[in-house]
Amino acid sequence: MQLHSFFNSSTSYRVRIALALKGLAYDTLPVNIRVGEHRADDYVANVNPSASVPALIDGDFRLGQSLAIIDYLDQKYPEPRLIPLERELRARVLELSALIACDIHPVNNLRVLRYLDAELKVTPQQKTAWYRHWIAEGMAGIERLLERSNAGPWCFGAQPTLADVCLVPQIANALRMDCDLRAYRRSLAVYEHALKHPAFDAAQPQRQPDYTA
Amino acid sequence: MQLHSFFNSSTSYRVRIALALKGLAYDTLPVNIRVGEHRADDYVANVNPSASVPALIDGDFRLGQSLAIIDYLDQKYPEPRLIPLERELRARVLELSALIACDIHPVNNLRVLRYLDAELKVTPQQKTAWYRHWIAEGMAGIERLLERSNAGPWCFGAQPTLADVCLVPQIANALRMDCDLRAYRRSLAVYEHALKHPAFDAAQPQRQPDYTA
Repeated sequence: MQLHSFFNSSTSYRVRIALALKGLAYDTLPVNIRVGEHRADDYVANVNPSASVPALIDGDFRLGQSLAIIDYLDQKYPEPRLIPLERELRARVLELSALIACDIHPVNNLRVLRYLDAELKVTPQQKTAWYRHWIAEGMAGIERLLERSNAGPWCFGAQPTLADVCLVPQIANALRMDCDLRAYRRSLAVYEHALKHPAFDAAQPQRQPDYTA
Repeated sequence: MQLHSFFNSSTSYRVRIALALKGLAYDTLPVNIRVGEHRADDYVANVNPSASVPALIDGDFRLGQSLAIIDYLDQKYPEPRLIPLERELRARVLELSALIACDIHPVNNLRVLRYLDAELKVTPQQKTAWYRHWIAEGMAGIERLLERSNAGPWCFGAQPTLADVCLVPQIANALRMDCDLRAYRRSLAVYEHALKHPAFDAAQPQRQPDYTA
């Protein structure tokens, strides 16, 4: 398999964690979204009509969108399973994952921050306030979901799931943006536990072939 | 079952379509997000820690996040199945759904538009340009995915799936905001086909008990 990935993209990071947890070998094909390589005609036409990273190449099958890719991997390579089969646990895992993937991450990603700069001419202070506002609102929700589940050391118990796969890159991003996360005790505990796991460690931005400081 | 819903919320609209397609009876519990009822202490503590609509109540089980709710319904009431089991078709359905649920909708929802107004003091023209920019970028991606699938009358063939459940409310929103969608011929054809289906019709905002003009 091959993965079109950008080291600092948290959606790419999710898929890298999933591939590593499943022990699947792959080649990284770097796509530098900072210079717009995800919008190149050939990439959009032949690899990923979503014009984004990540994109998985599995033989003749090419797939975009991190959540779709991870579900595909979970169907094809079910061990270890990241989206549980037991109905209520599955629902809880998907609920927390969607809170990150639909409510937090999209509002703070590179294209949105660039629009704030280029089109709305916001000040650096306004951009930071924007970022921190959505992190604070979203992380409060995550923390409430984790309190309700009252599990550990992973979001939903003894094994990592899609919820952890989404949470770790989101927290890494928030820390990179100097957000104060001390109020989110359970989330930070999961994050710290995860980084000790070799699959989560191997998926980190600074371990990627396209990493630049 | 009961559904906490707001008539004009497109994530609520998704779940209403899914419930109607499956022929499941439910009571609507209106949550007026325009006046912040989704942030009320009791609602957040006891119904939906995500502080959003929709939320499903199924006996003792309470679940937020539209994509998690629809997956839960698909597990518990699999006919008709909205998330296919066949691996590659399933991946395609989830890919298009994620493009809407993660790339388009979150950037244009009520809380973001209100932040643009209240915190960034954008002009009405800037707000309209913001909305239309993300619709244009996202709909171009949807249209490319539909061209690749080359199916019809639904996004992926003869039966509606989660992709249609996500697409119809997104197009309804874009039309409400006067976006020019003529370039998205395949998307519009799916939308027009869907509105003739009784389940999609019944789920429309103007059919809801909390509808106001």
